Amino acid sequence: MSEDASTEKRGRKGGGRDARRTARSGGGMKMSAPYLIRKVPLYDILSDEGAEIIENNAETILEEVGIEFKDDPEALEILKEHGADVKGQRVHFPRGLCREYCKKAPSQFTQYARNPDRSVEIGGNNTVFAPVYGPPFVRDLENERRYATIEDFRNFIKLAYMLPGLHHSGGTICEPVDLPVPKRHLEMVYSHIKYSDKPFMGSVTAASRAQDTVEMAKILFGADFLDQNNVLVSLINANSPMTWDDTMLGALKIYARHGQAVMLSPFILAGAMSPVSVAGTLAQTLAEAMSGIAFAQMVKPGAPVIFGSFASSMSMQTGAPTFGTPEPALVLNGCAKLARRLNVPFRSGGSLTAAKTVDAQAAYESTYTLLPAVTSGVNFMLHAAGWMEGGLVSDYRKLVLDADQLSMMQRMVGGIDLSENGQAMDAIRETGPGQHFLGSSHTQANFEDAFWRSELADYTTFEQWSSEGSIESAKRAENRVRKMLTQYEAPALDPVIDEALIAYKSKRMEELPDSEF
Amino acid sequence: MSEDASTEKRGRKGGGRDARRTARSGGGMKMSAPYLIRKVPLYDILSDEGAEIIENNAETILEEVGIEFKDDPEALEILKEHGADVKGQRVHFPRGLCREYCKKAPSQFTQYARNPDRSVEIGGNNTVFAPVYGPPFVRDLENERRYATIEDFRNFIKLAYMLPGLHHSGGTICEPVDLPVPKRHLEMVYSHIKYSDKPFMGSVTAASRAQDTVEMAKILFGADFLDQNNVLVSLINANSPMTWDDTMLGALKIYARHGQAVMLSPFILAGAMSPVSVAGTLAQTLAEAMSGIAFAQMVKPGAPVIFGSFASSMSMQTGAPTFGTPEPALVLNGCAKLARRLNVPFRSGGSLTAAKTVDAQAAYESTYTLLPAVTSGVNFMLHAAGWMEGGLVSDYRKLVLDADQLSMMQRMVGGIDLSENGQAMDAIRETGPGQHFLGSSHTQANFEDAFWRSELADYTTFEQWSSEGSIESAKRAENRVRKMLTQYEAPALDPVIDEALIAYKSKRMEELPDSEF
Repeated sequence: MSEDASTEKRGRKGGGRDARRTARSGGGMKMSAPYLIRKVPLYDILSDEGAEIIENNAETILEEVGIEFKDDPEALEILKEHGADVKGQRVHFPRGLCREYCKKAPSQFTQYARNPDRSVEIGGNNTVFAPVYGPPFVRDLENERRYATIEDFRNFIKLAYMLPGLHHSGGTICEPVDLPVPKRHLEMVYSHIKYSDKPFMGSVTAASRAQDTVEMAKILFGADFLDQNNVLVSLINANSPMTWDDTMLGALKIYARHGQAVMLSPFILAGAMSPVSVAGTLAQTLAEAMSGIAFAQMVKPGAPVIFGSFASSMSMQTGAPTFGTPEPALVLNGCAKLARRLNVPFRSGGSLTAAKTVDAQAAYESTYTLLPAVTSGVNFMLHAAGWMEGGLVSDYRKLVLDADQLSMMQRMVGGIDLSENGQAMDAIRETGPGQHFLGSSHTQANFEDAFWRSELADYTTFEQWSSEGSIESAKRAENRVRKMLTQYEAPALDPVIDEALIAYKSKRMEELPDSEF
Repeated sequence: MSEDASTEKRGRKGGGRDARRTARSGGGMKMSAPYLIRKVPLYDILSDEGAEIIENNAETILEEVGIEFKDDPEALEILKEHGADVKGQRVHFPRGLCREYCKKAPSQFTQYARNPDRSVEIGGNNTVFAPVYGPPFVRDLENERRYATIEDFRNFIKLAYMLPGLHHSGGTICEPVDLPVPKRHLEMVYSHIKYSDKPFMGSVTAASRAQDTVEMAKILFGADFLDQNNVLVSLINANSPMTWDDTMLGALKIYARHGQAVMLSPFILAGAMSPVSVAGTLAQTLAEAMSGIAFAQMVKPGAPVIFGSFASSMSMQTGAPTFGTPEPALVLNGCAKLARRLNVPFRSGGSLTAAKTVDAQAAYESTYTLLPAVTSGVNFMLHAAGWMEGGLVSDYRKLVLDADQLSMMQRMVGGIDLSENGQAMDAIRETGPGQHFLGSSHTQANFEDAFWRSELADYTTFEQWSSEGSIESAKRAENRVRKMLTQYEAPALDPVIDEALIAYKSKRMEELPDSEF
């Protein structure tokens, strides 16, 4: 569906780029489904009446409390021009104003990948899984926890590229702290383009870095194509409570003006950055997200946006963030509904955990965000794989373990096959009481694809498992990563494009200082 | 609610047992909620039209294929008398006959515990969590995998008694293989009564053992009380496909005739014991469960029953059972709906896994049955904690880790508090942009109970965790179990009852042989 649309659109608008497109499609990787398509119902916990209460409270927050737009006079000017009540940096929105502007945003859009088969549909019944974002540390294959490097960054991109459970290359999959801050984004964007052909995210740590991202994307996709289509999705975090800062606003304006998608994400540790309750956190999240979405629409009507929510709760005993707990799952479920009522795509967190190693805690907690997010109908899941230690660490082992879980989700959201073959009445008639189904013709015809099977779980007997060295889950994951990195082959990239990207990167590297200060 | 009902009913029917009841209520344990009460909507994947297709197929199986009732002439006689078409041991049911008999079963019932505060409501919006059932092995605190003993059995009962996440003492929480098979059940039933005051399950490995269970329950509750009330729930597994054997039928008849609940549970490894498809497995499960429920109603109209389903899928590559995969989650979700349409309570599996140790695989897989079961509205969850290695092993560590997860489920199914306090608008007004909520009066008033917090997860920083020995999840669980077993105090039991139970047990021990052969 999206593939056809993409090809057609490109053919029409891109003009004379057939050779390039062919090069993009190469790579030798077995293709997997580019994103989930949900056929099962949504799991909706918040009632319509409940949603109306929350929405009313969000309007009250926008009107009475207001939102700070910090250190960005241009943003304040734009807001004032569009009907907001600006007092200093505090912006009050008349009831209904934000919701009115949110209506200008598309309910669903395509993010194009350089390989058109990997373009993703964001919104509607679709779910896109992207890897962990942001950690300064990695836990490496020697099980050492250390600062991340650009080599780690490239490794994670290669793994995300190879993992069928992940649909997206992500963004700051780890922070390559061995590179100077002002130049880092250039290597990051280049690496996403070079080592993967899945869609990727842009830099947001400065407006100029967002601009560099856009320029490099123009080289890859062509300026005309970028002008008409969405090829980037970037993460704009609110500085909750009720604050947008100039860094994020600067990046937002660059992306929105180029028609590139931004996900407006209140980042909330409930109890500290929002009230110590689900309904209070929901109202605040909605107010923050709406103010960001409305602002993006004021900057450029129709710019693609995503309603983001990252919610964790705080241990009120110790002040530590907690993950995989029920209250954030309720926030997530409620936000998904609020986003649907706003008619914009929704983004959540994914396999979140506070654990330090890939132990039982890591898996329990991760699943307890992942599964509620999927049944809530999330459209874009960031941190779907590899997140550890409350976001401080990108973990090689956990990336592949989480991605293995992700790979079963299409089966879950695909629902129950009620075709005649699915009903299998012939098999039951043929087999009868007390017999086994292994030899039935239905089993023979269906066994290969019948049941999802993990790539990493061990299903052998205790005796076999013992005789093979009693290898636990984390070690199996480590072995898998080592093998994958050996097997990795880069997807083909048009040498002309590659050279142009390298030239741009080199030029900017020379222009930029080695330090921000 | 149920507590009041229970007390009232007992006062009326039990007669003159106040002293005994007081003794039952003792024990010094902090009371936790006796079962989950769901306030959130169900997650329903199977459509009404889909359910009709499955129901129609189940009727076809019952009518055309038939169900074997093996080696039990009395059962065949009962079935014939009630309108079934009996040919040898194969029983064909005219369309609609089973469903008609299923209507005689109660949609919800109480299972009384010796401590009335721990009685459980089975059916409706309620969920009861019971521990693992059946494993011959344990993995002990020295991390040794070995045959289970009666000491392990007692330890697991003590732990289940102390764990707030578990509502039920369960049944064969592990198989005490150090005791002779014919006598084992007497020690097991006595241990449930002696070491816990939560409700428990009866023996089903022979009709005579079911009878012993009933006799001991009569000593505990009084014969009159047992005659009028349900104090036992017992597991009757179908020998799938489409077979009930004489052992299970024998136990079923004893319990049903005494008005004690039976859960009729097709035990299905899909691909081997049912078709290699979800819809086929659903139809077969429904046919088997309906035949068992109908038979129980023919034995005693109105006898409490539970529609059980244990579904796993087979790795079609190796023949090994797999757990935590999507297809059994879909079967479980569909069965829950089919049970609701049959208007009887539903039972599922719980924290199922094929893992050998409490690693990430164990936790991923367990959560992937637990959470779908809870959102599907399961009424009785067996194997909710402690299950390992596909049911071969009861694991001390996993019992407490799973139970920790269970303890958050009431928060999840309790839904979103939309009261004024829950909305927390005052906190948002008071705090405002850029400030934190820690000091707000709303936070002060609510922080203690605001967010669920794990007893076993580690939320500390990497530095603190490292300085405290880098203790992983499984080791923390081990430490917790050791501490709990030290702290355990038995709930008070009326000495008169205790003596009578010991006397019955001793008499039967003398009567019974040491070997079945």
